[in-house]
Amino acid sequence: MRRDTIYDRDLDRVPANHQPLTPLAYLDRAARVFPDHVAVIHGDLRRSYAELYARARRLASALAARGIGRGDTVAVLLANTPAMIECHYGVPMTGAVLNTLNTRLDSAALAFCLDHGEAKVLITDREFSRIAGPALEQAGVTPLVIDYDDPEHTGPGERLGSLDYEALLAEGDPAHDWAMPDDEWDAISLNYTSGTTGDPKGVVYHHRGAALLALGNVVTGGLAQHPVYLWTLPMFHCNGWCFPWTLSIVAGTHVCLRQVRADAMYRLMAEHGVTHLCGAPIVMSLLLNAPEAERRPLPHRVAFFTAAAPPPEAVLSGMAEAGFAVTHLYGLTESYGPAVVNAWHDAWDALPPDEQAAKKARQGVRYPVLEGLDVRDPETMEPVPADGTTLGEVMMRGNVVMRGYLKNPTATRAAFAGGWFHTGDLGVKHADGYVQLKDRSKDIIISGGENISSIEVEDALFKHPAVAAAAVVAKPDERWGETPCAFVELRPGGQASAEDLVAWCRERLASYKLPRHVIFGELPKTSTGKVQKYLLRERAREG
Amino acid sequence: MRRDTIYDRDLDRVPANHQPLTPLAYLDRAARVFPDHVAVIHGDLRRSYAELYARARRLASALAARGIGRGDTVAVLLANTPAMIECHYGVPMTGAVLNTLNTRLDSAALAFCLDHGEAKVLITDREFSRIAGPALEQAGVTPLVIDYDDPEHTGPGERLGSLDYEALLAEGDPAHDWAMPDDEWDAISLNYTSGTTGDPKGVVYHHRGAALLALGNVVTGGLAQHPVYLWTLPMFHCNGWCFPWTLSIVAGTHVCLRQVRADAMYRLMAEHGVTHLCGAPIVMSLLLNAPEAERRPLPHRVAFFTAAAPPPEAVLSGMAEAGFAVTHLYGLTESYGPAVVNAWHDAWDALPPDEQAAKKARQGVRYPVLEGLDVRDPETMEPVPADGTTLGEVMMRGNVVMRGYLKNPTATRAAFAGGWFHTGDLGVKHADGYVQLKDRSKDIIISGGENISSIEVEDALFKHPAVAAAAVVAKPDERWGETPCAFVELRPGGQASAEDLVAWCRERLASYKLPRHVIFGELPKTSTGKVQKYLLRERAREG
Repeated sequence: MRRDTIYDRDLDRVPANHQPLTPLAYLDRAARVFPDHVAVIHGDLRRSYAELYARARRLASALAARGIGRGDTVAVLLANTPAMIECHYGVPMTGAVLNTLNTRLDSAALAFCLDHGEAKVLITDREFSRIAGPALEQAGVTPLVIDYDDPEHTGPGERLGSLDYEALLAEGDPAHDWAMPDDEWDAISLNYTSGTTGDPKGVVYHHRGAALLALGNVVTGGLAQHPVYLWTLPMFHCNGWCFPWTLSIVAGTHVCLRQVRADAMYRLMAEHGVTHLCGAPIVMSLLLNAPEAERRPLPHRVAFFTAAAPPPEAVLSGMAEAGFAVTHLYGLTESYGPAVVNAWHDAWDALPPDEQAAKKARQGVRYPVLEGLDVRDPETMEPVPADGTTLGEVMMRGNVVMRGYLKNPTATRAAFAGGWFHTGDLGVKHADGYVQLKDRSKDIIISGGENISSIEVEDALFKHPAVAAAAVVAKPDERWGETPCAFVELRPGGQASAEDLVAWCRERLASYKLPRHVIFGELPKTSTGKVQKYLLRERAREG
Repeated sequence: MRRDTIYDRDLDRVPANHQPLTPLAYLDRAARVFPDHVAVIHGDLRRSYAELYARARRLASALAARGIGRGDTVAVLLANTPAMIECHYGVPMTGAVLNTLNTRLDSAALAFCLDHGEAKVLITDREFSRIAGPALEQAGVTPLVIDYDDPEHTGPGERLGSLDYEALLAEGDPAHDWAMPDDEWDAISLNYTSGTTGDPKGVVYHHRGAALLALGNVVTGGLAQHPVYLWTLPMFHCNGWCFPWTLSIVAGTHVCLRQVRADAMYRLMAEHGVTHLCGAPIVMSLLLNAPEAERRPLPHRVAFFTAAAPPPEAVLSGMAEAGFAVTHLYGLTESYGPAVVNAWHDAWDALPPDEQAAKKARQGVRYPVLEGLDVRDPETMEPVPADGTTLGEVMMRGNVVMRGYLKNPTATRAAFAGGWFHTGDLGVKHADGYVQLKDRSKDIIISGGENISSIEVEDALFKHPAVAAAAVVAKPDERWGETPCAFVELRPGGQASAEDLVAWCRERLASYKLPRHVIFGELPKTSTGKVQKYLLRERAREG
C-alpha cells in the first residue's frame, strides 16, 4: 500500500475541515433554524426548539457546575417525558454519559446498574420512587439524586432527594457555551441489556454512531421536514432507537406519552396530526384490539416502525386497514436499536396478502449507515449460502455497532470475534440477500436431531383466529431430546382447545414440528414487550 | 479533561464497530437490495443497479491490474454519461483519486491540470478530442489514454489512444473484490476550481466528506426511495454536488444528458417521470424561455435545486407557475458543492411574492452535516452582529469542507486561517441567523469610500422586464476611485436604453449605487454558468 502519495502531504485534519460527528449538533441547528417550531408536546405543555435547547443548556450548565464532566455516568429513571428528551442533549453536552434505566426493573436490578455504571447522578421520576428508593439503599454508589415531578403524573410516588429537577435547571445558564466532544468516539450513552439471562450488560454508544444512526433513521423512515412523532417506544430502550436525536435533524415535534394506552394514542394522533411512531408488536395489538369507543380517525396514513418480532399476517392486514403503513425493522441494543430494514419493493404490492406478509416478515437488509450485514457460521466465519434454508448466526459490522460492553472485555471480545458483531440471533439468507431470523440460538428446538424453529410454530399458531399471542419453547423429552411446547394467549371471547390448535398446525407444519403440549394463559413479557421465554422454559420443564 | 474514565478502557475501535465512511458502500448496498431497479438511463440504454455495480467493479479491476492504486490520479474528460457515473465508483474502488476535468477548458488549462494532478490515466470522451489531443501534447505527464466513444454522441471528434473504454472494462472482473479505503480521510476526488483568476487550485475531497454530503443531500432534498434524477448539472462540477453518490443511498435513477437543451430536458422529464434536477440559474432561464414547441407537461411537481446566484423574483415565480419547486442552495467547490440551504418556513408561504423572493434570495443555514456556518470579520475572526447589514466574510467549518488544496500548503493555510474555511464571499447575517451573500470580496465596488454590492445593483437591473441577465463590476474612476459599470443582456425582443435602465435603478437604489456606464451584449460565462467577471472588469477598465 502506497503511503506517501501527493495526497498524503499537507492535507491534514484541522478544525476547519474535521469536526467530531455528534447528534448534539443537530439540536443546535434546529434551534437556530426553527426556533419557534414546537419541539415538545406533553399534556397542555408546548415547548419550542429555542426553549428545548435553552433547557438542555441549563441542564448541562448546572450539572457541569456540580462537577459532572467527561466520562461521568448520569443515570435517569424517567418515562417518555420532556425531561427525558432534555437529558438526551444536556447530559452529553457536559461530556457525561447518559444511562437510561428501564423503569420496569426491580430495585435489585436498578441497584446493580447504578453500581456497575458508577452513577454520579440519578434523575428519577416521582412515579418510580417505589423502586428507586430501595435501589438507592441497596446500591454501593451514592449519586446526587434529582427528583422529576412531572405535572402530568398525578398518581402515587414521592420525592427522594433534596433537589428538584426544575430547581436544578434554574441554577443553569440557558446560553451555556457547551463544547462538542473532543473525539467522536467518546461515549454518549450507556444502555443495559434487558437481561433475560444473567446480569445485564452495559452497552456503550458513542457520538459518531448516534449521529449516523439518527441520519439513517431519517433516510430509512423517509422523514420529511417537521414530522410529528408519538413516543410509544420507551426512550430508555436503546435511547428510543435514537429518535430523540433523529427528530432534531428534521425539526420534528415530540409528542410525549407516559403510558402506552390505546385511547391516549388515538387521541394524540388525531389532535396533533402524528406522522410517525415506533413500537413493539404489542403496541400494534393494543391499537387493533382497542374498543370502538377508544378509537379516533387517523389524520392521514401514519408510519409505524416495528421491531422485536416479525409482524404476523393478520396484524399487518389489520394495520393496513386501520390506516397505518408498517415498516419492519430489526436491531439490538448493541446496534443502537434498528440497523436493518425490511426494504420494500414496489413490485411486492402486487403479491397476494399472504405472500406480502411472508416478504414483510423478513428482517431484511442493512441501513445505509450499517456497513455490513451477513449470516455466517460462527465457528468458521464462512457466510452461509443464500438459499433461504441454511441456518447461521446473523452478524453485523460498522459504525452503528456499540463500542463494547462496559467493564466487560471478555464479553466484548466474544461479541466481536472474527471482526463481526455476533448478534446471537439465528437466521437464513434468502436468494435476494434479505436476512430472516429463524430463532435465537437458545430458542431452537432440537427434536430427534431435527432443528425446529420456534418462530415457525408460533407463526402457524398466530394465524388461528382465536389466538392473541403464542410462544413456543423446548420441553425436555426422553425419547426426542426436546419437543415443542406452546404457550397460548387467547383473544377475548376467542375459543380453541389444545386439540383444535394442534389440528390447525398439522395443516401447516411438518408433523415433527407440531406442539406436543399446549398451555393456555397470559404470556410473561419484559418491560419492552418481549416474551420472557426463559420463564416459559422453566414452566415447560416443570409442567 | 479526564482521560482515564471507565469509558476509556477496553472499548476500542475494531473492525466490527468501526468502518471507514465512504460513499462506495452505498452502491454496494443498492446493488444488493435493488439489483433490478434501473440505475442509469441514457438514450435507449437502461442499466440496472446490478449492472452499474458490475461495470464499476470491472473498471476498478482493470485499472488495478494496470497498476493503478492508492493515491494515483485518474483524470476524466467526460460529459454526463454512464461512464462518468461508473468512474465515480470504479476509480475510488482502486484507492485512486478521480479528477473530473471541466470539458470547456482550453487545452492549456487541461494540460496544467493533468500535470499538477500527476494524472496516471486519462479517460476522455471522443467529443472532446479537439482539446484533449493538444492538452496531452502540451502536458509533461504521459497518462494511459482511454477513449470513451458514447453511441449517443454522433458529432465530430476522434479516438486518441489505443485503448477503448469498453475494451478496458472487458479486461475487468465484474465480481472484483475491491477494498474499502483503509482510512476515511483518504482522498476520493480532485476538483480544480474553475479559476476566474490565476491558476486553478486542486481541491481534494475525502471519503468521509463525500459520504456525509451524500447523506446531507438526501435529508435536505427530502429524497424518498427511487427518485428519478435528471443530469443537468455537470458531473465535473464538484462531482455533481455529490449526486452520483447520493442516488445510491435511495436507489434512484440517473437520467443522463450530454447537453443542456430545453427540448431534451422537457422530453426526459415527461418520459421518465423526473423528480429532481439541479442547475445554475441559467438552466432555469433555459426552461422558462423555451419556445412552446419545445415544452412538455411536467409529470408532477419537479424539485429544482439551484445555486451559484440567488434566484431573482421573476424567475422564482415563473418556475413555480411552470410546476417546479425551487430550493436555493449555496456552496463552493471547497464544500463538496452545496453545504448551505435556504431552509423554508411554512409561514413564509403566506407572504406576498416579493417578500417570498427576498426570503428565497438568502443563502440560508448550514446543512445538517456541516458543523459550522458564520459570517465573521476575517481580521479579528469576530462574528458580525446578526443585523442584516454588517458585512463580513462567510465562513464554514466541518466534515464537508475539503482536505485542502493539492500541493499548495500556502493557499490551504490561508483558506483555513483561524480554524474556519474562508469562502471569499462577503455577506451578512440576518436577525434569524440566515446568511445572505452580498458579494465576493473582489466584487465589492468601493466608490467614494462607500461599499457598493454589485449583487444589489444587479438585482435592481434584473427586475426590469427587458433584462435577461446583468453583471455589474467596478470601473476605475479618477474622482470616485471606482464606479459601478453594468453589462446587460436583453431578452429576445426586449427593449431598453441605458438611460431607461439608470432611471429604473434610481427608483430602487441610492444614487451613489447607480451604474455610471451601461454596456449591452451577451455576458461571458464559465462552463458552469458563472459570469466571468474578470473579463468584464478588463472590458470596463479598457472601455
